[in-house]
Amino acid sequence: MATDLTGMTRVHHEKLIRFVSRSFEKLGVPPSAAEIAANVLVSADLRGVDTHGVIRFNPHAWYVKWLKDGSMTAKPNIRVVTETASTALLDADNGMGMVAGYRAMEIAIKKAKGSGVGIVTVRNSRHYGMSAYYSMLALAHDMIGIAMTNASRQVVPTFGRDARFGTNPICFAVPAKDERPFVLDMATNTAAAGKLELAVRLGKSIPTGWALNEKAEPTTDPRVAQQARRLLPLGGSRESGSHKGYGLGILVEILCGVLTGTITALNANQEPRGHLFGAIDPAAFRPAAAFKTDMDRLIRELKSTPPVEGESRVYVAGEIEFETAEERSERGIPLHSSVLKGLREVSEQVGVPYDLE
Amino acid sequence: MATDLTGMTRVHHEKLIRFVSRSFEKLGVPPSAAEIAANVLVSADLRGVDTHGVIRFNPHAWYVKWLKDGSMTAKPNIRVVTETASTALLDADNGMGMVAGYRAMEIAIKKAKGSGVGIVTVRNSRHYGMSAYYSMLALAHDMIGIAMTNASRQVVPTFGRDARFGTNPICFAVPAKDERPFVLDMATNTAAAGKLELAVRLGKSIPTGWALNEKAEPTTDPRVAQQARRLLPLGGSRESGSHKGYGLGILVEILCGVLTGTITALNANQEPRGHLFGAIDPAAFRPAAAFKTDMDRLIRELKSTPPVEGESRVYVAGEIEFETAEERSERGIPLHSSVLKGLREVSEQVGVPYDLE
Repeated sequence: MATDLTGMTRVHHEKLIRFVSRSFEKLGVPPSAAEIAANVLVSADLRGVDTHGVIRFNPHAWYVKWLKDGSMTAKPNIRVVTETASTALLDADNGMGMVAGYRAMEIAIKKAKGSGVGIVTVRNSRHYGMSAYYSMLALAHDMIGIAMTNASRQVVPTFGRDARFGTNPICFAVPAKDERPFVLDMATNTAAAGKLELAVRLGKSIPTGWALNEKAEPTTDPRVAQQARRLLPLGGSRESGSHKGYGLGILVEILCGVLTGTITALNANQEPRGHLFGAIDPAAFRPAAAFKTDMDRLIRELKSTPPVEGESRVYVAGEIEFETAEERSERGIPLHSSVLKGLREVSEQVGVPYDLE
Repeated sequence: MATDLTGMTRVHHEKLIRFVSRSFEKLGVPPSAAEIAANVLVSADLRGVDTHGVIRFNPHAWYVKWLKDGSMTAKPNIRVVTETASTALLDADNGMGMVAGYRAMEIAIKKAKGSGVGIVTVRNSRHYGMSAYYSMLALAHDMIGIAMTNASRQVVPTFGRDARFGTNPICFAVPAKDERPFVLDMATNTAAAGKLELAVRLGKSIPTGWALNEKAEPTTDPRVAQQARRLLPLGGSRESGSHKGYGLGILVEILCGVLTGTITALNANQEPRGHLFGAIDPAAFRPAAAFKTDMDRLIRELKSTPPVEGESRVYVAGEIEFETAEERSERGIPLHSSVLKGLREVSEQVGVPYDLE
């Protein structure tokens, strides 16, 4: 509600979820699906993954645009195409990835309860937002959660001149006992596209190893990088291991794309998308309590590492996001005026009262 | 048999397997286990992963040393501790990782035939050699194979001063139709320890982003890096994404260590090791033929990427190793005189005739 000195306004996450959910309903999405999708989007804002939050909820971008122009199905018939004791393939019917993803993860957890592990893939889906949302659903069941998705072509193979695959994220969430869970949610290229946006906004240069220009030469200009859409795989250069980031990106395309038949790397249209969700029950291998106690021991060992000169502490994957979520749950999510403008536009177009400021 | 100008002698892989296998037998390993272990080691040499091959088969290193001094069990009682329809935990009884690994992968494949996916972890094991050997066992069954292991502490967390975890490799093998399989076998740090050895031998410096010195500062001296045992995670620096390599390394420690109770990151002795093996049956998701045809399409798309200035082609993970294996199967494995010396020493100590040159 309050606007601070940086031009950010704090909005309580529950208020934001309600607004987004109602707006999705007005766009034809069934209430339960609207609520899931709103939860996924606002969870990203809560955790500080702003690039995957309500910054994308405006009439000009992604979900709202696609629902309005009819290119994404508002009331998809999500169905199980095929399944075994531990696996399933869903068809998302060209609907929101968030809704199919939630359903798929529920099935993966159920299968893991029965057989120790569940893997559920999704074909014919659309952008699913933040990966961590799905993998973290496993935590309440004391399970390891997995989420991956393919994405639009903007990463070049090592030695390659043109983009051939997406930023294809890998995400694992692992429960601990008293420590916070381990949550790794990483694009398989060096730096997320959102970091280019940020550098442009701040007028900063980017390190070499992030992106190439139109001629496939290294660039430090974020505007040039955005234009060229030639991001580099994690590692940056061959001598620094970019063949590994390239390999991981293709692995995700195989698991989400080839395993489902929805291969973005072979599709100039960049849509639809394929996903993979998984759940592993640690209790299938050893007592859950012993597993979680050992997770605490590992996490504490990592956090106790003495930091190098100039750094104050060593983090564990997900730690910063948990701290951000705690702060934002209490103080509200800081939204930039340009993001609020987009939300106001949605309000005007779909007729949900704008009550965020 | 022939020594070339670089001081390398070519030895046929079958001859080498026979020699290593018989030597393992003389060291007390049962014949079938000895053959498996020899196959794993020589497969690494065949594929050009020389750091994981017979360079480690001498009286001063690893397997032979441990079997001779009794610190590794020659005739382990490998047993299934617990299992479900899709999972199992094996205890390797402090025996060679190669033998437990082979057995675990067989079980994973069998379980995947029944339920679409199998995950088999191994506790209380030892060094298992090259990861790709195990994941590639799935290829003959038209399945995706997975292998991971934890390893001794020599990688620092991002911002950390001291090593806390290992080079913890991730390996996936995926079948294709007419193209060669996709085989990603990568340590999760920037450059394998073997690359430091190579730089020392060639008198070359290493790039920053590979390792730190004793004071936890970046170093370009491979000798200093070897001494300090402070390798950097994939990404190298925070701004180039080292938190991702760090996260992946810990993920492997969780899946191989915390899931089994054999956590090298918490063990100053660095032994024993834990592993994870997996098999996913693509036929559980879509017809195997369609999957393999689409793998071909993806691989061809990647290989057709125009290369950047100064490079001749774009590779797919595993391609170089397949080409190396073809050449070495035909012409023999090139072994350095120092490696042959180690093999002669084994011959003298265990009493297997030396017939390699």
